[in-house]
Amino acid sequence: MKKLIINLLSLIICFQLSAQDFTQAQKDKWLEIAEANTPSLVVCKKKPISLVTISEDKSAFQGYKAVPKPGLENFYGNDMRGQTETVLDFGEHLTGFVSFKIDEKKHAVDAPIRLKFTFAETPAEATLPFDPYTGSLGRAWLQDEVVTITEVPATITIPRRVSFRYARIDVMGKCPDFKISEIHLDATTSVKVKPVPLAASTPALIKDIDKVALNTLKECMQTVYEDGPKRDRRLWIGDLYLEMLANRYSFKNDSLTKRCLYLFAGLIYTDGVVQPCVFERPKPHPQINHLFDYALIYNVVLKEYLEDTGDIETANDLWPVVKSQVQFPKKYIQENGLIDYIQADKEWWLFFDWNRELDKQACLQGCVIWAYKNTYELAKKLGKEDEVAELPGLIDKLSKAAHKYLYDKKQGVFVSGDKKQISYGSQAWMVLSGVASKKEGAEAFKNIAKLENAVYPGAPYMYHYVVDAMINVGLKQEAKDVVVSYWGGMAKKRADTFWEVYVPDNDFVSPYGAFLVNSYCHAWACTPTYFIRKYPEIFQK
Amino acid sequence: MKKLIINLLSLIICFQLSAQDFTQAQKDKWLEIAEANTPSLVVCKKKPISLVTISEDKSAFQGYKAVPKPGLENFYGNDMRGQTETVLDFGEHLTGFVSFKIDEKKHAVDAPIRLKFTFAETPAEATLPFDPYTGSLGRAWLQDEVVTITEVPATITIPRRVSFRYARIDVMGKCPDFKISEIHLDATTSVKVKPVPLAASTPALIKDIDKVALNTLKECMQTVYEDGPKRDRRLWIGDLYLEMLANRYSFKNDSLTKRCLYLFAGLIYTDGVVQPCVFERPKPHPQINHLFDYALIYNVVLKEYLEDTGDIETANDLWPVVKSQVQFPKKYIQENGLIDYIQADKEWWLFFDWNRELDKQACLQGCVIWAYKNTYELAKKLGKEDEVAELPGLIDKLSKAAHKYLYDKKQGVFVSGDKKQISYGSQAWMVLSGVASKKEGAEAFKNIAKLENAVYPGAPYMYHYVVDAMINVGLKQEAKDVVVSYWGGMAKKRADTFWEVYVPDNDFVSPYGAFLVNSYCHAWACTPTYFIRKYPEIFQK
Repeated sequence: MKKLIINLLSLIICFQLSAQDFTQAQKDKWLEIAEANTPSLVVCKKKPISLVTISEDKSAFQGYKAVPKPGLENFYGNDMRGQTETVLDFGEHLTGFVSFKIDEKKHAVDAPIRLKFTFAETPAEATLPFDPYTGSLGRAWLQDEVVTITEVPATITIPRRVSFRYARIDVMGKCPDFKISEIHLDATTSVKVKPVPLAASTPALIKDIDKVALNTLKECMQTVYEDGPKRDRRLWIGDLYLEMLANRYSFKNDSLTKRCLYLFAGLIYTDGVVQPCVFERPKPHPQINHLFDYALIYNVVLKEYLEDTGDIETANDLWPVVKSQVQFPKKYIQENGLIDYIQADKEWWLFFDWNRELDKQACLQGCVIWAYKNTYELAKKLGKEDEVAELPGLIDKLSKAAHKYLYDKKQGVFVSGDKKQISYGSQAWMVLSGVASKKEGAEAFKNIAKLENAVYPGAPYMYHYVVDAMINVGLKQEAKDVVVSYWGGMAKKRADTFWEVYVPDNDFVSPYGAFLVNSYCHAWACTPTYFIRKYPEIFQK
Repeated sequence: MKKLIINLLSLIICFQLSAQDFTQAQKDKWLEIAEANTPSLVVCKKKPISLVTISEDKSAFQGYKAVPKPGLENFYGNDMRGQTETVLDFGEHLTGFVSFKIDEKKHAVDAPIRLKFTFAETPAEATLPFDPYTGSLGRAWLQDEVVTITEVPATITIPRRVSFRYARIDVMGKCPDFKISEIHLDATTSVKVKPVPLAASTPALIKDIDKVALNTLKECMQTVYEDGPKRDRRLWIGDLYLEMLANRYSFKNDSLTKRCLYLFAGLIYTDGVVQPCVFERPKPHPQINHLFDYALIYNVVLKEYLEDTGDIETANDLWPVVKSQVQFPKKYIQENGLIDYIQADKEWWLFFDWNRELDKQACLQGCVIWAYKNTYELAKKLGKEDEVAELPGLIDKLSKAAHKYLYDKKQGVFVSGDKKQISYGSQAWMVLSGVASKKEGAEAFKNIAKLENAVYPGAPYMYHYVVDAMINVGLKQEAKDVVVSYWGGMAKKRADTFWEVYVPDNDFVSPYGAFLVNSYCHAWACTPTYFIRKYPEIFQK
């Protein structure tokens, strides 16, 4: 009898799991739609604009600056034997394929030539040695490529796509006389539209921030919304969300958003959870790496996409994916309405930010509520409220618990975890989820600003949610101040594109133990253009 | 008046020079014929046969040996992270393009992978560091190639053609888990014919020498007779001569010889001198590097080609090139009949051998006589004696002078230079030129063998002429002894192909200051197969 019950239970569990299953045929169909929406790339031939010397300068970002020097024309004619540390400045951050032409100088080239190219997003990357490498990510993210040339004259295209402003060339070891007679980049992006200009009255720094943000987004918009064209060169849901927001107000490439939504759907895991990132090549495949907050954000992206485009067909087609993402958080909702974040943390990757000090309880609680609310809004637009009828009850339960347990009335801030940590992240997510009233939220941001031990965001990704939350609760000037001080800080440090990680008082912070492997053109840092353009009354005056 | 004479003299000089000139139309026609005779390459897929460990062994060539170890099958499945010094043995010397397949191991490969491949002709090359590099030739001749893989699964072909027996793989730095699931070489050669087997009675070591010689020749026979498929990968006249001799008795690819003769003709220098080496790609071009003895050898190659093939049309077509090579030595013939080798050495590269101790007076004197004699024989075959009517007189003058001034009757050897140096090279060229009578030549070789300070050949190229000369004067056993001890010495040291440089008591001799950059498959070492097959009565019993 006991055995029978167990078997019956197994059957029920199986049924529940299979209810979230998607057939291969369904997934293949979604992948086909993703494929059909692959954008063509605009290819633009770009040449270096100057030779530069990379000089130490304590006041410059990471201690190095690029100083232009004359001689680009001579460079093309020079005998390159023994030449090292030649740095070419392309004048802007670019992504694509580098080609160069090698010619004889005086004699027939009678031995192979070996060149090392180092492609650098920042001046430091063009001068500091890559080895010994201390990073936790793959060493080969660093863009040094060694090329052997056995026949001259030759036009060589380096097979790796690279992303850089500065291209350094080192001639490796003894070789015959030769010259480099041409070098260029076939720069690619799927951006085809010029965004409307900002109001003439827009402050110069805001204009500059907007420009750098647009460059960042342009560079990341390839055949998917990449997180960073140097690294990781792939589609993550968190980046997709912020990129699609910025895209709505700038380059308006809706079909790219559609392609990305379909890619995630087509590569959904067997348990019905959307994976946090996918690779396009050689054929679309996911990285199996369950990430709680990113899976939830998928639903918000689809809702935003529908709002933007009115593409109800896509929203209906992908609705089952959204419904499936509603399921997995439920297991962690405790009777008191709080999410068992400790258990969730054991079973999932909880991301939210690169600041490892961040206690994620409040963020997680807020994110689930926010995602559920967005999902329910989407359901209403599709007339499918009955399919997620449980959501209003869950939202209510989660919200009440959050307010009851996470709001510190006395300090006027939201706290997180056993140690009642006070972080910008917690305030942001309690605001975005609606757990905080407008007044509580506004006060919370004012109060946290006075606290010495508040935990700050560790990267632009979390700063986005903070600014969004501030605007949400009417803190317009404060939101603008964050954009000006944080992203403006990068711009003042001569960022060509905004960085994956930026901590104003430390240029060397890296989540990966090696700051050179940070991405210095990172999608999730592009949202100032979203804020500046969505809220002209705040930013464009 | 003085000025007028100078002008007249200039005119005469101009006329003489232009008499040697070839029109571009003529040269283009020759290049077209060269192109039309480009052989197709036979491509054969070759896989590694074993993993090996490179172990120190004082008794092995250059102190290292390759010891097979089990595990090739596991290698293909292994997680390659952190794996260094994996050495694959392909079981034979091969030349071509390496391809390999990279697959996921357990997880999606989420970062680029960087591999260093080192292709080694000898065990030492697979284990000794290439840097710091002390050689005088280009460092990039050493075959280490760094490959970055950004998309997985992937099949990658390394763009450089390589030449090796051992392929070493080092995974460079931190990277995700992955496996190499396949690796192979598309081996190329233009050899399409199996040579006839040697007589069953042939001693085992001779059979072995013949096999290694044939492998050497096979590897060097690509779309030209290369000197060495690792280095220099090009067509030199000296190598062409020895290769075409060996080819006549083995692979019988006459059109390859024809192609090479036409390449040199089509790329003749403006002064009418055939250049010593030419490159095929990206389009045929010479290395301008006047080499006295090689230019003369061109004539001998054409004569041998005609003898072998009866292709009188080619011989007639290229006759003007031959006639032009007759000219340049004349300027150095002194009244006493000796060539002014000191002046020639100033104005030309005199090669003959890599042993830098060699005094080249006797070699040069002998080589000019030998080339003139061969040229005159060729003229007779073509009925063109009247066009080189001066040759018999010159040959006589040069020969008499050589005998008078360079033969040391007392010692019974030929001497060379101010210091009356006694070398194997001098004896060989005095024999081949016919300056030495058969008896004098035979005695000279017997006498030099007893001398302590005799200068020995520094490489197989000169050993060829020594063996040829020994056979010429009837020293059959002695010739065989040289083949057995010299080339047999390499075979006993486990040569897969014969080496560019071999000095029996010193494995580390290099003309280039770095023994690893020596070519260990070098065309000019292939002639044992010529001797063994041309003179079966000496070698095949």
